[in-house]
Amino acid sequence: MKIYDTPGFPNPARIRIVLAEKQIDSQIEFVKVDLFAAEHKQSAFLAINPAGTVPVLELDDGTFISEGVAITEYLDNLHGHPVLTGKTPKEKAVIHMMQRRADDQMIDAIGIYFHHATPGLGERLQAYKSPEWAHRKEWGERHLQKFVQGMKYFDSVLKDQAYVAGNDFSMADITVYAALMHAGAAGIAIPDDCAALSAWQAKVSERPSVKNRSGQVMELPA
Amino acid sequence: MKIYDTPGFPNPARIRIVLAEKQIDSQIEFVKVDLFAAEHKQSAFLAINPAGTVPVLELDDGTFISEGVAITEYLDNLHGHPVLTGKTPKEKAVIHMMQRRADDQMIDAIGIYFHHATPGLGERLQAYKSPEWAHRKEWGERHLQKFVQGMKYFDSVLKDQAYVAGNDFSMADITVYAALMHAGAAGIAIPDDCAALSAWQAKVSERPSVKNRSGQVMELPA
Repeated sequence: MKIYDTPGFPNPARIRIVLAEKQIDSQIEFVKVDLFAAEHKQSAFLAINPAGTVPVLELDDGTFISEGVAITEYLDNLHGHPVLTGKTPKEKAVIHMMQRRADDQMIDAIGIYFHHATPGLGERLQAYKSPEWAHRKEWGERHLQKFVQGMKYFDSVLKDQAYVAGNDFSMADITVYAALMHAGAAGIAIPDDCAALSAWQAKVSERPSVKNRSGQVMELPA
Repeated sequence: MKIYDTPGFPNPARIRIVLAEKQIDSQIEFVKVDLFAAEHKQSAFLAINPAGTVPVLELDDGTFISEGVAITEYLDNLHGHPVLTGKTPKEKAVIHMMQRRADDQMIDAIGIYFHHATPGLGERLQAYKSPEWAHRKEWGERHLQKFVQGMKYFDSVLKDQAYVAGNDFSMADITVYAALMHAGAAGIAIPDDCAALSAWQAKVSERPSVKNRSGQVMELPA
């Protein structure tokens, strides 16, 4: 299997944590995509993922799988012992519910803020950011508000339970963690009154799948 | 089990089609939520789904499950014979990938257009639509463009395969179908050059789970 990604970026980090949790890193050949050069917006990459996002998983039969949840479902179920996406119908349902909230309120929200209300990945990518849309920056700022509300929501969840989807670590935790990593790189901290979220972040950062990973911090353009 | 929803609306329709495909309608008690009266934005409903959306599934143990994918994962796996969410790791991955594209480019896009660039569900709900945001309508219009691009994308997919995620009907088909239903109710038709999408829509509309369902058409306020 191959993964097309960019080390250190939030959505690639999600899948690298999945691989480490599943201990199948060694089965993957990584192909680096140069996000700063807008490689993911060029026709060669769009042919493997029309959405123009990393990471993309290429199966040995040539099938391309994009989107974090889809890649995680594949890797987690590959050897018949899912540990991140749920075993019972109820576990699957709660994890997918919290995953969707984590996507919408956390990782997508901070991504929209970063790419639209800040210089994002720099000059080269400006051309792909709806330059004709005058209200792009305001739209990005609204997503920072949404992200802050998302942090407060997940803080309230984590006051009552050990992990985002219940008693066990799941793919929804990975998504919230990666979103906070992106936020940190963009200068957005966890609010002081979100103690449960901060304690959970510290706990997750000690997992071997997270702690031993290199390239965890985004390298933003100067 | 209970489902809190509003018959005839696009996201409720998704789950009603799932129930019919699984032939478990009779196990559900439906509780009607009055969207026109903004019932889904009041504290009683927000306590069962903080996102303020329908439908919500209540399990017999009192657990509330929201979000279409999460509810579908539960119902489809309930008796151990999934037919809408994939059996093999590859099937799960492709279905979840196409599901995410259907969510983002189709059902979410037409929903944002409808609620922000048109009168939507009417006066009562205006207060919940960021009235202070001057560029709300323009933002909605941009999502109509996104939806039209989404229709062209799924048309291209359906030129080469019978269903959205391959040879078999899946939850991703249900989402695209419900999005087109919403678009139709909002006066947005499939473009003439999307013949494969139109043919697929006609085929899906003949499925018993779709054809025999009452309340399929949204009742918009006059």
